[in-house]
Amino acid sequence: MNGAESLVRTLVNCGVEVCFANPGTTEMHFVAALDRVEGMRAILGLFEGVVTGAADGYGRMAGKPAATLLHLGPGLANGLANLHNARRAATPIVNIVGDHASFHAQYDAPLATDIAGFARPVSGWVHASTSSKSVAADGARAVRAARQAPGNVATLILPADAAWQEADGPAVPLPHLGPAPVSSATVDGVARRLRDAKKSAILIRGGALQARGLDAAGRIAAKSGARLMCDTFAPRIARGAGLVTVERLPYFAEQIVELLKDLELLVLVGARPPVSFFAYPGKPSWCMPESCGIHYLAQAHEDGVGALEALADAVDAPKEPSGRAEFKRPELPTGRLDAHTAGQIIGHFLPENAVIADEAATSMLGAAMFTANARPHDHLALTGGSIGQGLPVATGAAVACPDRKVVCLHGDGGAMYTLQSLWTQAREKLDVTTIIFANHSYAILNFELMRMGAENPGPKALSMFDLRNPEIAWTDLARGMGVEAVRVETTEDFARHFAGAMRSRGPRLIEVAL
Amino acid sequence: MNGAESLVRTLVNCGVEVCFANPGTTEMHFVAALDRVEGMRAILGLFEGVVTGAADGYGRMAGKPAATLLHLGPGLANGLANLHNARRAATPIVNIVGDHASFHAQYDAPLATDIAGFARPVSGWVHASTSSKSVAADGARAVRAARQAPGNVATLILPADAAWQEADGPAVPLPHLGPAPVSSATVDGVARRLRDAKKSAILIRGGALQARGLDAAGRIAAKSGARLMCDTFAPRIARGAGLVTVERLPYFAEQIVELLKDLELLVLVGARPPVSFFAYPGKPSWCMPESCGIHYLAQAHEDGVGALEALADAVDAPKEPSGRAEFKRPELPTGRLDAHTAGQIIGHFLPENAVIADEAATSMLGAAMFTANARPHDHLALTGGSIGQGLPVATGAAVACPDRKVVCLHGDGGAMYTLQSLWTQAREKLDVTTIIFANHSYAILNFELMRMGAENPGPKALSMFDLRNPEIAWTDLARGMGVEAVRVETTEDFARHFAGAMRSRGPRLIEVAL
Repeated sequence: MNGAESLVRTLVNCGVEVCFANPGTTEMHFVAALDRVEGMRAILGLFEGVVTGAADGYGRMAGKPAATLLHLGPGLANGLANLHNARRAATPIVNIVGDHASFHAQYDAPLATDIAGFARPVSGWVHASTSSKSVAADGARAVRAARQAPGNVATLILPADAAWQEADGPAVPLPHLGPAPVSSATVDGVARRLRDAKKSAILIRGGALQARGLDAAGRIAAKSGARLMCDTFAPRIARGAGLVTVERLPYFAEQIVELLKDLELLVLVGARPPVSFFAYPGKPSWCMPESCGIHYLAQAHEDGVGALEALADAVDAPKEPSGRAEFKRPELPTGRLDAHTAGQIIGHFLPENAVIADEAATSMLGAAMFTANARPHDHLALTGGSIGQGLPVATGAAVACPDRKVVCLHGDGGAMYTLQSLWTQAREKLDVTTIIFANHSYAILNFELMRMGAENPGPKALSMFDLRNPEIAWTDLARGMGVEAVRVETTEDFARHFAGAMRSRGPRLIEVAL
Repeated sequence: MNGAESLVRTLVNCGVEVCFANPGTTEMHFVAALDRVEGMRAILGLFEGVVTGAADGYGRMAGKPAATLLHLGPGLANGLANLHNARRAATPIVNIVGDHASFHAQYDAPLATDIAGFARPVSGWVHASTSSKSVAADGARAVRAARQAPGNVATLILPADAAWQEADGPAVPLPHLGPAPVSSATVDGVARRLRDAKKSAILIRGGALQARGLDAAGRIAAKSGARLMCDTFAPRIARGAGLVTVERLPYFAEQIVELLKDLELLVLVGARPPVSFFAYPGKPSWCMPESCGIHYLAQAHEDGVGALEALADAVDAPKEPSGRAEFKRPELPTGRLDAHTAGQIIGHFLPENAVIADEAATSMLGAAMFTANARPHDHLALTGGSIGQGLPVATGAAVACPDRKVVCLHGDGGAMYTLQSLWTQAREKLDVTTIIFANHSYAILNFELMRMGAENPGPKALSMFDLRNPEIAWTDLARGMGVEAVRVETTEDFARHFAGAMRSRGPRLIEVAL
């Protein structure tokens, strides 16, 4: 057994079942090993941003890492933007990055690069294997690092000779550390402050945004009146009918400041105090009112669910949470098709247990509003601000959850970064319905130009946000990659096609003309 | 005048006329300044790999840097693979990477990243501006660094507040250092060795692969019998009728070893001794025969053209070079359309002074053979091995040379990485004809799997190189981005459409079904 096979066997033994891959010559032994080992599904992406973004979507939904397989420094480089997003999402991912054989490094051949240099800014753990004998153990450590709460990007650099030389066999999986428990002193301290505060809020991130954590938070809210909030870009949140509702922080800092201005106490569960997404001239980055106390119930690596349940008991909360969303199916709209009416239609037809991968950007509010009381679903946001995440995340989520409908809401500008995702969806027959909100613009930048105080934009500046010349035909792009597609201009057409997509299976794309 | 405007004015004063851009919020002041300053053309790319690859193509053809405008760490990250290629090409490029305002850095907002960490592996020069007052001077230094022979990637990180705060005005351009002259002692030493060696070769890279350098090299060859060679992936070479022919080193190391095996002397002009592109089990990385002397006539940063001319005189070479290519127009082929017959057709119709951007990979040999004696042209290769360079490089070359026909030869696998280039070609009405060699495969990896010694590939391994399921329809992809496209299956059809493309102007794409 060579090093590559020892690594693949170790990954499988550690529970890694999927490898999103875009391999090259240096990865050939890993690729060959895939056929000799049961239990690892290999999924090809035609661009590395698809590969890493899919691993992010998979990890968020599966709660455990997929592997990626990438080709030296440039292959990793193409995947970095979505690894940045994955790092912000705290998604567990194990990157396997092939490198030149160790004896080849000295020659500085064309593909030689500082792989670790590229990897470090996005990785919680980076290691370059030094021998085929240690590759398996390195793989086990990579999985453990990826699974450490709340989740990490772990990057293992695999020199080609460490892959092809003889190994001793797979390594034993390492015990992985769950989230650390929160002390009762911390819980009691927060309980006391919560009783004393008239205006309080609990800001939640991570695993506590699933049903159990939300229930506990809703019980605390029922007792204390605390508002429940989540970040603008929460990695994953369960929402819709039957789930306790949390308010999403708005995008712009001044809106956050307004929302929080009377707050006396902010309790943080796996979250950090809100800050401005960007800085603007003369505006504060820090969004908290000065008089507000900030207390951590659970850090990101700690057990937020357990802490919320303990806090609910500590404040003598009732068994039944407040704020549970009722099922309210939005009416089907008539009239003009826009992001608002499209959102109504999405909320109307969204099936139970769907997964929404949301990079709709300026078109997101309609769907957000009209899915709040729709059938229960998971919502995955663009966590790191690097656009081009939605299509790959949808792809990976569909791999992780083959029995759930995945709906990808995407702006047309952002979707162009990783459009190759559609090909992987077609190849793997993934059940993803992609909605492209086609406003033919980097619409957000028209706002941002003004907000940044750049006066009197001229034609050159405006042309930098304008995608109209030429207009992109998403139906052609999708069909070119084997995905059925349609463009709709009316609410009636969108309703018909979206309803049809929800009833059938497999990838399709609907371009919503805005 | 704010920092951004002082920077744009400085760049223009330093001769930077084009900015390939994919900006975001932090770059808004730079974008706004583009309208207030004459002389900087702004060209939008819908993905950063297009932006940086276009800057590479521009720099290779213009011989001076374009600027790129990129959005924080993730924006730079998406451009890194083609910056890696540009670094290997020694192309002058000035990257302007926007960053959060300095006062925002402490908050670790979602887009915060280690930009310099990403930039270092691909940059010869990296600097983060610390004040709006110094931005202009930083820009002048960036241009000087980019232009230092043989050419560098220079990365200037521009915090948003350094862009929006008040500046003192543009900076004075710095004198840029041309290539260093080669001493007569070096020239005389090489001349002596050349006279003594029976079997010698001159391996040339950089500016000496243009007409003047080639003429001098051909004179030396006429006198000494030295063979003239260039790297497999020379950044830019003038070839075709009337130009002195150089042999391109083959791709595989054992072929290079075979080619060089009897050599007594290798003279290097801006090149390094050839090494294997990848390492393979049991095969050497170093391709030089032990008995061969290696002598540098010019290092990469030195004046290779001047050194070759001095060497020609030192060896008493005749005025007329040997090896000048005659014009031999290939016959139009009949029969099956494949990479070979396609190459004949390309050679037949290639117009004078065309630019070939070549990432045809396993389909490149036909065109290489049949353009050797075609009308004179420039050839741009994939320098760093990171696929997805050809379409952007063609885009940038067309911007640099609006009066020359650009022909992009591309494998279908590689073309998927940066297909968004076609949109920029359509928007800017660039005169690029793209030929996609559609073998629906990462064909090279089928060879490499065997060469790496990975035995008995199974279906999973083979599926990693197979792009047939589903087949990509390049005509749909091109049309979706506003580029006229056709798919051809016969030599007659290809000849007709390629000839038509050579006669007309503007972007079009021909998918060659292999």
